[in-house]
Amino acid sequence: MGKKNNVRLRIAIQGIATSFHEVAAFSFFGKSIETVECLSFHRLCEALKSGEADHAVMAIENSIAGSILPNYFLLQQNHFSIHGELYLPIHMHLMALPGVAMQNIRQIESHPMAIRQCAEFLHALPGVAIRESEDTAFSARRIRDEKLKDTAAVANEQAAKKFGLHILERRIETHKKNFTRFLMLSREANGLGANKATLCFEVRNEAGSLADILTIFKQHQINLTKIQSVPIIGKPSEYSIHVDVEWRQRKQYDQALKVVLRQVRNLNILGEYKKANIQFS
Amino acid sequence: MGKKNNVRLRIAIQGIATSFHEVAAFSFFGKSIETVECLSFHRLCEALKSGEADHAVMAIENSIAGSILPNYFLLQQNHFSIHGELYLPIHMHLMALPGVAMQNIRQIESHPMAIRQCAEFLHALPGVAIRESEDTAFSARRIRDEKLKDTAAVANEQAAKKFGLHILERRIETHKKNFTRFLMLSREANGLGANKATLCFEVRNEAGSLADILTIFKQHQINLTKIQSVPIIGKPSEYSIHVDVEWRQRKQYDQALKVVLRQVRNLNILGEYKKANIQFS
Repeated sequence: MGKKNNVRLRIAIQGIATSFHEVAAFSFFGKSIETVECLSFHRLCEALKSGEADHAVMAIENSIAGSILPNYFLLQQNHFSIHGELYLPIHMHLMALPGVAMQNIRQIESHPMAIRQCAEFLHALPGVAIRESEDTAFSARRIRDEKLKDTAAVANEQAAKKFGLHILERRIETHKKNFTRFLMLSREANGLGANKATLCFEVRNEAGSLADILTIFKQHQINLTKIQSVPIIGKPSEYSIHVDVEWRQRKQYDQALKVVLRQVRNLNILGEYKKANIQFS
Repeated sequence: MGKKNNVRLRIAIQGIATSFHEVAAFSFFGKSIETVECLSFHRLCEALKSGEADHAVMAIENSIAGSILPNYFLLQQNHFSIHGELYLPIHMHLMALPGVAMQNIRQIESHPMAIRQCAEFLHALPGVAIRESEDTAFSARRIRDEKLKDTAAVANEQAAKKFGLHILERRIETHKKNFTRFLMLSREANGLGANKATLCFEVRNEAGSLADILTIFKQHQINLTKIQSVPIIGKPSEYSIHVDVEWRQRKQYDQALKVVLRQVRNLNILGEYKKANIQFS
């Protein structure tokens, strides 16, 4: 039984060791976890669904690139529950094999979200092809493994160290206070101690239908920290609303939800969890 | 003077001839325009700003991939005005040189938004590298120009025809009712005959601050067709709200705006224009 307690939590991450998802996983769950490396968000969901992983870490939005809308669809499809969140400051560097100079670089590769966050820097480089990859750390490892002398990767400090790459240019992200928000996912809900929730529901495209819902939250002192309308494919006159709400008194939230439930359609609680703070280094 | 009337409107598009932006430009302005090809949204804004183009066409959101948040920043930075919109159904095909079969393909390239819209199909292909390019049509042209026998492009019917490529797989977009919304931009505002507006403003991260604004719109029978909160970089306790609103009576809109102006900060009218319909083919 003593042994059983030593079994490490298995956490699915998008990308490989040193990826931003791994940094987020260590920061939330501590260092003594086992990570399950997944090269797509689809694969990440499979790992959690099958029980290969106990939890999964999923990026959901970035201060520059915006929401990763397809991940909301994955969350809903798989009926996962959000049990926590983390805001990670994101610093990106351009890195290549030691001895390789900026003028030798013919292509740069990284994850599409990383490319979007460094768009200003990358698009100012003449004669360089930008290549999309599965993961920032994966791109760094490929340069080492295949000894690519004409390629640079956009990745973090940890990847440069682990794969022996040299940093050509530091902090190439467009905005220096760039952060990514990660969600911690489980197969089952556990809202103990929660003070924040992610909800989605559908409203008619009518004057006031959304105003009424937000007014219910207001009357119960529920704070809104994110709102986004998402068109419902094939139904141009309706839309789906994603909101993040926070409360001081759980009772207020429960009461608000009871009222809201009667005014919207297809209400889903994507998760109830403890809110995290944004801390810039 | 007769000659002067024959001068064609110059419209800046992202991408080259046959790109989705060109299709959108022809559909909105008619066929007798001259397009100014731009290989990035930055370049597109420069072309409009400098007077090289009279108007610009800019994709702003897609039903699958979501909002192109960086384009909202570009709009605001450049003080452009939206004078129209267009919803274009998006059908994507996988195309290669004639004689090239699916099993010969080692890499697929396209614009990042196109890649995101076809993610399900593309990520199910084993042993194929996905490459990001400046434009869907540009990728198709490159395959023809460089006679690439191991590469396929994700692009539209028009590009396949123009560049003599063979369609390997039709309609590879994840959702078949996929559309992209394009904005028509000008250097100066002209809200004549408008029944829709795109606004942005800042509110405090407090219970009810947004509910109050939406209630003002409701009281004036203003319909909300899009809402999105955008974190203000470096100010975690505030956020910026982007909304699209529609009205039947201009007077109602003007009155609502007068009230809203006193309750928010940094109100910007990004444009007042005639609303378009979503039509699926």
